[in-house]
Amino acid sequence: MEEVSNKQVVLKDYVNGFPKESDMLINTSATISLNLPQGSNALLVKNLYLSCDPYMRNRMTKTEDSYVPSFTPGSPIAGYGVAKVLDSGHANFKKGDLFWGFTGWEEYSIITAPESVFKIEHTDVPLSYYTGILGMPGMTAYVGFYEICAPKKGEYVFVSAASGAVGQLVGQFAKLLGCYVVGSAGTKEKNVGGKMLEAVLLNMRLHGRISVCGMISQYNLEQGDGVRNLFCLVSKRLLMKGFVVTDHYHLYPKYMEMVMPLIKEGKICYIEDIVEGLESAPAALVGLFSGRNVGKQVVVVARE
Amino acid sequence: MEEVSNKQVVLKDYVNGFPKESDMLINTSATISLNLPQGSNALLVKNLYLSCDPYMRNRMTKTEDSYVPSFTPGSPIAGYGVAKVLDSGHANFKKGDLFWGFTGWEEYSIITAPESVFKIEHTDVPLSYYTGILGMPGMTAYVGFYEICAPKKGEYVFVSAASGAVGQLVGQFAKLLGCYVVGSAGTKEKNVGGKMLEAVLLNMRLHGRISVCGMISQYNLEQGDGVRNLFCLVSKRLLMKGFVVTDHYHLYPKYMEMVMPLIKEGKICYIEDIVEGLESAPAALVGLFSGRNVGKQVVVVARE
Repeated sequence: MEEVSNKQVVLKDYVNGFPKESDMLINTSATISLNLPQGSNALLVKNLYLSCDPYMRNRMTKTEDSYVPSFTPGSPIAGYGVAKVLDSGHANFKKGDLFWGFTGWEEYSIITAPESVFKIEHTDVPLSYYTGILGMPGMTAYVGFYEICAPKKGEYVFVSAASGAVGQLVGQFAKLLGCYVVGSAGTKEKNVGGKMLEAVLLNMRLHGRISVCGMISQYNLEQGDGVRNLFCLVSKRLLMKGFVVTDHYHLYPKYMEMVMPLIKEGKICYIEDIVEGLESAPAALVGLFSGRNVGKQVVVVARE
Repeated sequence: MEEVSNKQVVLKDYVNGFPKESDMLINTSATISLNLPQGSNALLVKNLYLSCDPYMRNRMTKTEDSYVPSFTPGSPIAGYGVAKVLDSGHANFKKGDLFWGFTGWEEYSIITAPESVFKIEHTDVPLSYYTGILGMPGMTAYVGFYEICAPKKGEYVFVSAASGAVGQLVGQFAKLLGCYVVGSAGTKEKNVGGKMLEAVLLNMRLHGRISVCGMISQYNLEQGDGVRNLFCLVSKRLLMKGFVVTDHYHLYPKYMEMVMPLIKEGKICYIEDIVEGLESAPAALVGLFSGRNVGKQVVVVARE
């Protein structure tokens, strides 16, 4: 069995308030065998790109909430990423295959649920896109905009956190549909969240729809902001709908059919904020919550 | 022309905070002719029952909000009621017809938009029911429960303000459908509103639906409560939908078909809190906001 070093980003302990780089450590002493044991139906993979996503903050807190399980202190954190199969015990994957889905924040991982990851079919786009426009954030933009809001040409669209991985896509989808688009983003304090929602409610049009995929400004607060102006729901006949994108992954092929031509024809642009190396990962993740990133925050673990 | 005295409940001035009886006065000096002028297509009506509804508080404040127009200080206030036609200039109505719809808080009114009121076809139930279970509050319960929440047998239903005109019906509709029902009501402070919604959000089930027909606890506040726990919208995939019942009045015949047999077969019970005389109307209306009433608050102007 070939044993190699396997650098890892480990959560030291559960986090209160804003996460800090020092809440994580780089463990350089772990090793891993690059061959799966006989009879395993897992995948042994090399991680290429890791995705920094706001929802990960929720996993840094001990919670019984069924929404997303907590990380385990002392273990590597996990998240969406792009990885390459080095050894496969699963019929759907062979050595050399690429996929996107849940993996560890480490150089090599064992994927115990290969059914839950998406094999990458198109490699004529940057592979890192599968952490964003071609992955979970892209699907979030698609579901939140098209499925929940059911937008029509000429309607008015407001995008909160409009420079982030999801927001930048919603804004462009809306423009392509012929909507009038307003977005907010870019202050150091991430001008989103409770106060922004209050202002949005006052400015919504009759029969407006609000799709809610997350609330980044709330994740670091002991007790979240109270949101006023909810009476606008009644007077303006508004719909507010929360969703978790994983419930909608059956739409991924339909989304790919729509978005791939847009990318190839240059009709959509996608901004990434890429940092190099697992050592840079804690700062990149923490930076999400102070608005450091412009565009989708990606960590390169290895390019091949 | 026969001129008769026409007692009126007049709004003295716009209201701040909780409305008081003294915000209104009883005007006993007005008179009205009991015949319409030649060529009028209005209705001259005698008011029988008047409905005290929470949304009326919003009309006591000067607002540009399109939701519901403000009352005019110095003039009689208006609201839903049951009335009898004394003289008709409109083809759809004749002397002696009964209807429910918008009318004035006075003994006699001129209805200038007869198309907007509903002729009463069934008089084998208490006429006052047309201010409640057979009128706007009944339709609110019907639309909010069946149309917005699309409930299924066996689901769990929570009813806020469960003893009010709307809430008492939602609770019974839900029981009749085979749902498990929990309601809140009855404290002097009307244990509803922001804090209740916060608790409800924490206790909602996955894919729950919240229909919002009003926010009685907020109407007297300069600045409304902030509502926390909205992140539950995401983690529990909740839908929150506000509505204004007037948008759904085309469903009234369908609702009548459902609810009339329930009433006649005694399968639904409907609690009214009835006070006698226009003089009692200001106190009855104001009482809504301190939780004085038990069941639908009705004012009898005349029984025939």
